Amino acid sequence: MRRKLIVQKFGGSSVADVKRIKNVAKRVVSYAKKGCDLVVVVSALGDTTDELIELANKINPEPSEREMDMLLSTGEQISVALLAMAIHKLGFEAISFTGAQVGIITDSSHTRARILKINTDKIKEELNNGRIVIVAGFQGATLNQDITTLGRGGSDLTAVALAKELGADECEIYTDVKGIYTTDPRIEPKARKIEEITYDEMLEMASLGAQVMQARSIEVAKKFNVPIHVRSSFSKDIGTMIIKEVKIMEEVVVSGITLNKNQAKITICNVPDRPGVASMIFKELSGSGINVDMIVQNVSHLRQTDISFTVNKTDVSKATKIIRSVARGIRAGEVLLDEDIARISIVGVGMKSHHGVAATMFSVLAKNKVNIEMISTSDISLSCVIKKKFAEKAVKALHKEFGLTK
Amino acid sequence: MRRKLIVQKFGGSSVADVKRIKNVAKRVVSYAKKGCDLVVVVSALGDTTDELIELANKINPEPSEREMDMLLSTGEQISVALLAMAIHKLGFEAISFTGAQVGIITDSSHTRARILKINTDKIKEELNNGRIVIVAGFQGATLNQDITTLGRGGSDLTAVALAKELGADECEIYTDVKGIYTTDPRIEPKARKIEEITYDEMLEMASLGAQVMQARSIEVAKKFNVPIHVRSSFSKDIGTMIIKEVKIMEEVVVSGITLNKNQAKITICNVPDRPGVASMIFKELSGSGINVDMIVQNVSHLRQTDISFTVNKTDVSKATKIIRSVARGIRAGEVLLDEDIARISIVGVGMKSHHGVAATMFSVLAKNKVNIEMISTSDISLSCVIKKKFAEKAVKALHKEFGLTK
Repeated sequence: MRRKLIVQKFGGSSVADVKRIKNVAKRVVSYAKKGCDLVVVVSALGDTTDELIELANKINPEPSEREMDMLLSTGEQISVALLAMAIHKLGFEAISFTGAQVGIITDSSHTRARILKINTDKIKEELNNGRIVIVAGFQGATLNQDITTLGRGGSDLTAVALAKELGADECEIYTDVKGIYTTDPRIEPKARKIEEITYDEMLEMASLGAQVMQARSIEVAKKFNVPIHVRSSFSKDIGTMIIKEVKIMEEVVVSGITLNKNQAKITICNVPDRPGVASMIFKELSGSGINVDMIVQNVSHLRQTDISFTVNKTDVSKATKIIRSVARGIRAGEVLLDEDIARISIVGVGMKSHHGVAATMFSVLAKNKVNIEMISTSDISLSCVIKKKFAEKAVKALHKEFGLTK
Repeated sequence: MRRKLIVQKFGGSSVADVKRIKNVAKRVVSYAKKGCDLVVVVSALGDTTDELIELANKINPEPSEREMDMLLSTGEQISVALLAMAIHKLGFEAISFTGAQVGIITDSSHTRARILKINTDKIKEELNNGRIVIVAGFQGATLNQDITTLGRGGSDLTAVALAKELGADECEIYTDVKGIYTTDPRIEPKARKIEEITYDEMLEMASLGAQVMQARSIEVAKKFNVPIHVRSSFSKDIGTMIIKEVKIMEEVVVSGITLNKNQAKITICNVPDRPGVASMIFKELSGSGINVDMIVQNVSHLRQTDISFTVNKTDVSKATKIIRSVARGIRAGEVLLDEDIARISIVGVGMKSHHGVAATMFSVLAKNKVNIEMISTSDISLSCVIKKKFAEKAVKALHKEFGLTK
C-alpha cells in the first residue's frame, strides 16, 4: 500500500524562535511516526524578512530586485537548516533543500517570480530514502541558476505547488490562528471557525483582506484541486478545509466578513467626461506598479464627473503625486485624499443564488447610521467603503444579521 | 591591452555594518574607475557566523555538518547581496554570486570541504559584461549541488583560488590590521609592519598564531605562486606583500615573533618506555578530532618517561578525559594539566643558514629569568613554551634582540 504523503507548511510565526522550531519538529515527527511521507515547507524565522529589507534599504533605497532575492532567500535557508537539526535531535532522518536545489524553476521576474516547473526527482529520491524532506519556501531559481523569490506569502505557493506536483494526499498550512473564521475574532469575539470553505470563497476573502493565506496559492490549489487544511501550529485542533465544494446540507448565503483598513480613497473631481480619460488615469498608475482596488465613477453632470478609487496605504504618496500631475494634464479639478476609510465585505458562494443580500447589508449599515461611500460587487462578494471609525460596529452588526455568530 | 584583474577579499570586520559596507563599495569602485577588472570575495557580516553557530547549538548540540553548511553559508550570501546594492548605489554595475552559483566545486567533507575545481566561465562572462563580480567567500557546492563550507578563514581560500584560476594580477586580502607585523603591536607598540614576507615564513607565522590569514590559503598561494597583498580596509596605506622570494638586499634572520596563549599543556608521567605507547596515546587523540601541537618526550629513567604535549584550550576537557583513560590502560602515572602557558615563536627563512639563533633566543629568555618548559623547532622557526605571565616580557625582549624594533 502506498504511504500517505503530506505537505506541511509552517509560517514565520510558527518558527519564530528556538522553542517554536523544536515544537514544529515534534509535530512533523508525530506524523512520521504514523508512517506518513512528509515534505515540509518553511518560511523565514519571525521577522527576518522585514529585518533584511530594512538593512537593504539602509544601503540602497532602490535595491536591485535580483540582489534583493539573493538577500531575502537566506531567511528560509536558515529556517530549513535549523528545522532539519531539530528533527535530527528527535532521532529522525531529515534533509533540507533550498528552492534552487530542489528544482523549483521560475521565470526571471525577481521578487515576484512565477513557478514554471518543479523537478521532483530529488524529493522523491529522499522520501524513498526514508527522509523527511524540508524545503525552503518562497524561493526558486531561474534556469540560469539565479535565485528568485515568489512574493509575499510565497511559501504558501511553494507548499501548494509541491503538493500538486507530488500528488500529495493533503496540504497543511500551519499558521498562528486556528483556521478561517467568519470574521476577525479580534473584532468579533463571537466569530466562528469555518469547517469547510470553497476555493472561490477563500480567494475572495483573501483578496478582500483575510490574511491567513496568499491569494495566488489558493488560485493554484483551485486550478489543480489540491485540498488544503489551514490550522494552528500551536494546537492539535482541526482547522478549516479549503476544498472545491462544501458538502454541508443547508446552504449558507454568507460565509464570512472581511475588513480592510489598509486602504485610502483618492477622488479626482470634475473630470472631463470624454472617452479615454479613465484609461489615461489608470494606465499611469499601473505603469508605476500601483494596484488600484475599487473604482467608482459617479454620473456625469455638465460633462464632468468625479472618479474615486482606493489604493493600498503604502502607495498613497506615490499615487497622489501621479494623479495630481494627470489631473493637471486633463484639466480636471481638485484631487482629494481620504485615508480615514475602511472596506467591509461580505463573501459567500450562496450570494450567487440568493437575492436581497445587498439590500440586507445596506439596511444593516443604515440602521447603524453608517454612511456608505463606495460600493463594489463581484459574483460572490459585496464590499462597501465606510468611515474607519464605524468599521468594528459594522462588522459586528453584519456578523449577527447574516447568522454567523456561534 | 589586457585590463588588470584584481581579486579583493574583505573579511567580516570590513563589512560589519552598513557604514563599513558602503566604505568597501567606495574602495572597490575606486579600482573600477582606474579601469581594473574586479572580483570581490566577501565574508559574513561581523559576528554573523558565530551567532548562527550559537543558534544551531541551541537546537542541536551536535548538528549535522551538511545542515551546518546550509545554515552558515547564508552569512556570506547576505554580504554579497548587500555589497552589490552598495556598489549599484555608486552608479557601477555589479552582480553577486554564491559559491555554488559561481562554480566552486568541492568534495563533500562538510564544514571543511576542499576545492576540487572552479568553473570560471560565469565570472569571465560577467567581467566581459563590464560588471564587478562579487563572490560569497567560504563556500562551494558538491557536484550534487549540496552546499559546503571551507572551514574557518575559508574566504581567504576562495580569494586565493579564484586569483589562481583567473590568472589575477594581484590578490588583495583586506583586514582590520595594516599588514603583517614583526609581532603583535598590541603587545609590542614598537612592532614594525613587514613590507615583504615569503610564503614559507607567513605559513609558519600563521600556524604559530598570527591570525591575519588562514594557513591553507597561503599554502595554495605558494603552490601556484599567487602574489598576495595583505592590507587594511580602513586605510589607503600599502600593507604586506606575501611572495615567493623577498628581494631585499640585506638578509633578515628573524622576520617575526608570534605568541599563542590559546593552548594548554598536558603531561603524562611515568609512561612505560616501550614501543607503541606514544602511538597509542596520539592515535586516540587524533581519532577524536583533537589537534596536538608540540610534543616533547623526556629521556627515560628506569624504563619510564614523561610525555608532554599541547592542545588548543577548546579541546582541553575532551583531551584530558581521553588521556586519563589511556594512562590507566597503559599503566602510566599521573596526568598533569597546565593551562597557564604561552608558546612564543621566532620565524624567519634566514634561520636556515644562520647558526646561533636558538642560542640567542634561549639566552634572551634566561637573561629575563624566563624558564623554558618545552622546545620545538622547524626549518624556519623555533618555539618555546613558557609561563603565561612572562609572555609579553619575552616577546618584547626577543623583538629587540633580533633587531625588529622600528
